[in-house]
Amino acid sequence: MSFQIDWHLHRRQYATKQLALFHAIRERIVTGSSSTGEALPSTRDLARQYGLSRGTVTQVYEMLAADGYIRSESRQRTLVSYRSPTTEPVKGVDVVLSEWARRCRPHQPAERAEAKVHFYPGFTDQRIFPNREWQRSISRSLRQPSQRVLHPAGHPDLRERLAAHLRYHRNIQATAENTVIVNGSTQAIALIALMLLEKGDRAIMEDPGFGGTHSAILAAGGRAVRAPVDEHGIDLSALSGIERRARLAFVTPTHQFPTGVVLSFERRRQLLDWAERQAAIIIEDDYDSEFRRSGKPLEPLRSLSPGRVVYMGTFSRTMSLSLRLGYVVLPDSLIEPFLRAKAVFETYSTAWMEQAALADFMGSGAYERHLRRMTRIYRQRHDTLLQLFEEHLPGAFVWTASDAGLHLFGRWQYGRQRFNRFEKQCAAAGIGFTSADRFYESKSPPSALFAFAHLNPEEAAPAIERMGRILKRLQ
Amino acid sequence: MSFQIDWHLHRRQYATKQLALFHAIRERIVTGSSSTGEALPSTRDLARQYGLSRGTVTQVYEMLAADGYIRSESRQRTLVSYRSPTTEPVKGVDVVLSEWARRCRPHQPAERAEAKVHFYPGFTDQRIFPNREWQRSISRSLRQPSQRVLHPAGHPDLRERLAAHLRYHRNIQATAENTVIVNGSTQAIALIALMLLEKGDRAIMEDPGFGGTHSAILAAGGRAVRAPVDEHGIDLSALSGIERRARLAFVTPTHQFPTGVVLSFERRRQLLDWAERQAAIIIEDDYDSEFRRSGKPLEPLRSLSPGRVVYMGTFSRTMSLSLRLGYVVLPDSLIEPFLRAKAVFETYSTAWMEQAALADFMGSGAYERHLRRMTRIYRQRHDTLLQLFEEHLPGAFVWTASDAGLHLFGRWQYGRQRFNRFEKQCAAAGIGFTSADRFYESKSPPSALFAFAHLNPEEAAPAIERMGRILKRLQ
Repeated sequence: MSFQIDWHLHRRQYATKQLALFHAIRERIVTGSSSTGEALPSTRDLARQYGLSRGTVTQVYEMLAADGYIRSESRQRTLVSYRSPTTEPVKGVDVVLSEWARRCRPHQPAERAEAKVHFYPGFTDQRIFPNREWQRSISRSLRQPSQRVLHPAGHPDLRERLAAHLRYHRNIQATAENTVIVNGSTQAIALIALMLLEKGDRAIMEDPGFGGTHSAILAAGGRAVRAPVDEHGIDLSALSGIERRARLAFVTPTHQFPTGVVLSFERRRQLLDWAERQAAIIIEDDYDSEFRRSGKPLEPLRSLSPGRVVYMGTFSRTMSLSLRLGYVVLPDSLIEPFLRAKAVFETYSTAWMEQAALADFMGSGAYERHLRRMTRIYRQRHDTLLQLFEEHLPGAFVWTASDAGLHLFGRWQYGRQRFNRFEKQCAAAGIGFTSADRFYESKSPPSALFAFAHLNPEEAAPAIERMGRILKRLQ
Repeated sequence: MSFQIDWHLHRRQYATKQLALFHAIRERIVTGSSSTGEALPSTRDLARQYGLSRGTVTQVYEMLAADGYIRSESRQRTLVSYRSPTTEPVKGVDVVLSEWARRCRPHQPAERAEAKVHFYPGFTDQRIFPNREWQRSISRSLRQPSQRVLHPAGHPDLRERLAAHLRYHRNIQATAENTVIVNGSTQAIALIALMLLEKGDRAIMEDPGFGGTHSAILAAGGRAVRAPVDEHGIDLSALSGIERRARLAFVTPTHQFPTGVVLSFERRRQLLDWAERQAAIIIEDDYDSEFRRSGKPLEPLRSLSPGRVVYMGTFSRTMSLSLRLGYVVLPDSLIEPFLRAKAVFETYSTAWMEQAALADFMGSGAYERHLRRMTRIYRQRHDTLLQLFEEHLPGAFVWTASDAGLHLFGRWQYGRQRFNRFEKQCAAAGIGFTSADRFYESKSPPSALFAFAHLNPEEAAPAIERMGRILKRLQ
């Protein structure tokens, strides 16, 4: 009998025989004990072997097939169809890597080689950055010896000031205790995935969504469930019951990445209700909400349900892409586990000098002044860019209306073929922008991102004019 | 029949039935499928169940007992005795943490609260640091916009200059390609443990040794095997055959931490031969070899066997404890996997400004000048400290002779009781030093570390005099 499952262990862990059998077989498959193409026992044999009804086994086989683990060749023959990502060979390696290492497929930032003018997201304009004030903060922080206050959670002054900032601007109950500095939001996402996902566990993310989140889920051994995003944001009701049985959801409610959609109030409730029912954790990535053009933002998920939501933000957008600092505001129950997990990788928090300088920059008022000034400048850049598109490429894109964020998201109106040619000819003319294809798992009509934080109108205008001429030639 | 093992899977993986059975049962135990106190089947029953000879089962039970997984209550009754670290409840948590998160028990730096004068390792003397030159490097690096060269492996200029430095000073074939900047050596140790250890795999470390290494092994799911350190360094021949079946060894050959012993040439060969036989990887942590008082260091393991050794160093000792930058020189086969693993946690390398400044500091020659000057100063501080001990506490410690490193290691000569009283009374007098007990797994006679990098002789002298008076009162 070569098909053995750890039945008793699973029977103890799950409430019903059906679930226990599902997880026992799934585990056998994902751990590679059964390999692709291997035949499963007939429902009759398996039912007999474990004293189950044949109906239970049939239902479990259907659940496994729905999830892509197995497929039926005929009524009699069911085969393993799951292909483990861990069995791919890694090039040039003569040592045996762990399963974890083989699962590490980090998100690759898009190729951004030779564009003379680009609209790629994530960049800031260092020419209008208050360099002198930043320099002063650095000099002051260098004069303060700080060897004795090192801590894995980050610089105490920075945590204090950041928490105050978040309480005031985002209405979040942040304190120096629950606010932790991280090496960019990627570190936070990766640690939380590792902390909460057991092998094979599901984590929900947006479709389209950020590739780094997908990589973090896979590295932790989890399975990414992509939930569709419509004009109200992520919609969990489009998922099956099994798909909703997830431990985690990663979302960008304020300004969905990349579509720019705002998560509606009803969907916020849907998400929070789901998290309560599943005892799941939501990671709310508020990656570029600092710059609002108008209006008041909706309440962050974190304020609505502090025990279920990890709030996450970054200084890369407000300061500079090269300042690799982000932060999380943690539920009380996760503070200690998060700090323990982080300290396994760094006894003390990294970039201590930059953290001390940033604390000084915030404490001196320079950060607030900088944000106010940039909000004004970014509003201008946003409005100008929209006008330029209206003038030179009228009707080519339908834009997501949005009052926050640092990029436009547009749905292309002329079909896939012309989009591909348009993108290619723009690239040939030295103009780079990001097609949204890489953020989708599902098939989707063409759309694109145009980030404007790093470009002044004088730089953007000739590029958009040129894009207009390219489009005309294609019509 | 409640005792089920995944026999067929293991039989395929291991060369002999005995090994397969050993690993199958061990896995059941470490994954918590069998819990502490549970009875194992009799050797007769198990032999019958899997068609094995009873002698094989008996031998496997003996191997498991030797490793502490099971124990025999009587000839008939064998119980699981392994207590999984993952079953401890975590305080205040109402979400279910992953097994990985429950394994995270990071190394806690020693309590170092109120000492007026302390000899704790790891600190540098910022008063004699070339602050002006460092400031200049920072200012220059701030003027260079660097958003486009961001990379997970670190700043390209820093990697280039560091590799040249290591080639020249340590005779290591380092290049910008195989040299990667990390957030302190802890990050490197933790990633490599995760990359190479599968759950239950063994990793060898020194006894005494660095607690952070132990934490990294446990977090990765591995089992730490402590190999004793004598006057020639770590000795693998003291381990049993099973213990030597490890995938990794973490060592500090140049200046063993904490004993200060230099790994002898014979032991280097022993270690490298072991690595070849086991297809294992050695992590050579060269944490404070920059400052040599005399002589030429032995060849690094890395130069003797570049394919098997990860060389590791840190800038915390040469620059400042608050500069959280370290580096690894990787075997070719591990470069890509290491970068993939690192990028899961950080898309781009952290502390970019500090890395750019450090590249400038090295490029301008300031780093070399600083090292030469500090080598002279540290030699003085080392010699003075030894003299002060000779004068005020003659015979109290027997010191490890060593021509490198930034701390003295002394074995106490007057018994455990007096040592404890001595330590306590020094603490009461505001004098802190580190007892080596916390670095040992085995029982060991008292010994202590006295780091001298951060103290000038005028500060050290009164503290040692005071320690002398305390000792006299105890005699």
